[in-house]
Amino acid sequence: MSVSIVNEQSITIADGIKLDSGRILAPITLVYETYGTLNETASNAILVEHAWTGSAHLAGKLNENDTKPGWWDAIVGSGRLLDTDRYFVICSNVIGSCYGSTGPASTNPKTGKSYNLTFPVITVRDMVRAQKLLIESLGIERLLSVIGGSMGGMQTQEWATQYPNAIASAIVLATTPRPSPMAISLNAIARWAIFNDPTWRKGEYKHSPKDGLALARAIGHITFLSDESMDAKFGRKFSARDGKFDFFGQFEVERYLTYNGYSFVNRFDANSFLYLAKALDLYDVTWGYESLSEAFSRVTAPMQFFAFSSDWLYPPHQTEEMVACLRELGKPVEYHLMTSSYGHDAFLLEHEAFSPMVTKFLNDVATARGC
Amino acid sequence: MSVSIVNEQSITIADGIKLDSGRILAPITLVYETYGTLNETASNAILVEHAWTGSAHLAGKLNENDTKPGWWDAIVGSGRLLDTDRYFVICSNVIGSCYGSTGPASTNPKTGKSYNLTFPVITVRDMVRAQKLLIESLGIERLLSVIGGSMGGMQTQEWATQYPNAIASAIVLATTPRPSPMAISLNAIARWAIFNDPTWRKGEYKHSPKDGLALARAIGHITFLSDESMDAKFGRKFSARDGKFDFFGQFEVERYLTYNGYSFVNRFDANSFLYLAKALDLYDVTWGYESLSEAFSRVTAPMQFFAFSSDWLYPPHQTEEMVACLRELGKPVEYHLMTSSYGHDAFLLEHEAFSPMVTKFLNDVATARGC
Repeated sequence: MSVSIVNEQSITIADGIKLDSGRILAPITLVYETYGTLNETASNAILVEHAWTGSAHLAGKLNENDTKPGWWDAIVGSGRLLDTDRYFVICSNVIGSCYGSTGPASTNPKTGKSYNLTFPVITVRDMVRAQKLLIESLGIERLLSVIGGSMGGMQTQEWATQYPNAIASAIVLATTPRPSPMAISLNAIARWAIFNDPTWRKGEYKHSPKDGLALARAIGHITFLSDESMDAKFGRKFSARDGKFDFFGQFEVERYLTYNGYSFVNRFDANSFLYLAKALDLYDVTWGYESLSEAFSRVTAPMQFFAFSSDWLYPPHQTEEMVACLRELGKPVEYHLMTSSYGHDAFLLEHEAFSPMVTKFLNDVATARGC
Repeated sequence: MSVSIVNEQSITIADGIKLDSGRILAPITLVYETYGTLNETASNAILVEHAWTGSAHLAGKLNENDTKPGWWDAIVGSGRLLDTDRYFVICSNVIGSCYGSTGPASTNPKTGKSYNLTFPVITVRDMVRAQKLLIESLGIERLLSVIGGSMGGMQTQEWATQYPNAIASAIVLATTPRPSPMAISLNAIARWAIFNDPTWRKGEYKHSPKDGLALARAIGHITFLSDESMDAKFGRKFSARDGKFDFFGQFEVERYLTYNGYSFVNRFDANSFLYLAKALDLYDVTWGYESLSEAFSRVTAPMQFFAFSSDWLYPPHQTEEMVACLRELGKPVEYHLMTSSYGHDAFLLEHEAFSPMVTKFLNDVATARGC
């Protein structure tokens, strides 16, 4: 059963945080939502990490008239994968984003104006650094679990390596220890598409640079799909509205990407898109360590990994590299390679396939903790 | 040995051709180069088909000061794969391109101005239709072979199916019977990048829309590479000139794509890029037929196919579909899956690997024809 109406909450940390870059970001506001009830020992909290363009609005509706539930509603609620009768579920918007947490569109207290490009470059580790303060403020010393896919998986890995004592388990989906140069180059052209839009004005836009942002999103969108899923959904169908020999005639897949690209403009900020793309590219779980092995030697919590066969953005072999390393270190790790045609998006769409494994993994951890 | 100085030649066909779209394109000029000598029976001619941004300048230098030889110089010359002591090698620039043959930048005789977007949408079959007239004008009734990779492979397939009696063999590299929706969508975003450039002005530019075209090229460029080749060449190296936390700081791979994108602007026309991208997307060897089997039932010449393991633009299974179909039809077909990390570009770079097979294939055909 879906959770009912939820309220967005927020916390502001006046002192902010010191970022990986050495700069201070202060104050920091974090927007978050919670579902279920924190138990007396504060031992049943699960933090869900969102991906690139996600938000704190994980599940339920914000008001009666809300037409769409949160971004991963299907797995949160009474009797669902993240069972709100048993667990206290938290989701917070990352810093750098545009859904309420401090990001480039926020007001720089020193100038009274939006940061725009004066916003500092942030890393995935910085996002988690901020979340740690939120979790502490909620009176939670140790999370029962952290779960996330894609950029959410990266954050989960940061929890496991940076705050090993603050989590009892971690569930990582469709991610990588560090994006490959192919993944970086695809983000690079998405950035370039925005830079090319004259209305972007080096971040000082009044209205969203829509043509550039829509194109940037379309590039990202392609990387979330697969040859197979596109073939099943569109094949080589040509738009019924266009002539095949019209210069501007479009294939269905092209029309779909255009439509979705322009829809995205209404819900996301261009500068946030750029800052988060940068954080993705810079991401490296070994940052500050000599090797993957050194970084993962810090892990204490059992980790469960999922990779998806048709994910070409963060292909399974990248997850397998981490799993092999953890096994070699003798860490408790579980790995599932899921067969799916949905590409990178599979982590959001294939929840029915991975739910049994996650349910069991969570139940084991929860039972051991007595919750 | 490389061929020496070569001369660009051209032919103009006043009546032009009737295109797949039903429109007439007239007149048509085709620029071409030849290497070696046509024998008395005109039986030793090999036509080389270029890819998207190629030209008629296949091999040798155009003058003493030329710093770079033609685009596939390594395989043409005395004692080389296409041995000019034995074969007469021809390469012509496709219609729609910007290297001398009739394209969107050509003058429309009806208006006295450049066609720009009034240029008709053309297909790969149209390109070959025009080439057929060139070959006839050279007194060649039957080509010893046609060879090409990528869009060149598509043209080769069109020769094999549309003019089966005009070729004695065909060699096809790194191509597809029809691009997948994934390949289409990547071209779609390249087009979009140009459309977004305000200096493109719906094709009526005075100066090249450089930001859009450079980005479009970079998108194409990514599809020609592979995760593996990018990793070997760039890894995750950050540009030594940039700080890792600079907003505009670039990874090496990013800098490389930017540099190459802007270099491309100096050598290629944006409208030609768009028209040829469209031709690629529309390409379907079964156009006008019920099935691949019906299209390939027309083939009479022996065909040799090469696919490259890391080519994700036109992955091997697409070539294998054609090979399986031809085998089922009892046609003479040979197939080689080449292991390579170079992605789609492998067809240009791995000539040493495939030369022995091509040499033997060509020699068998040539010997049978007594040349």
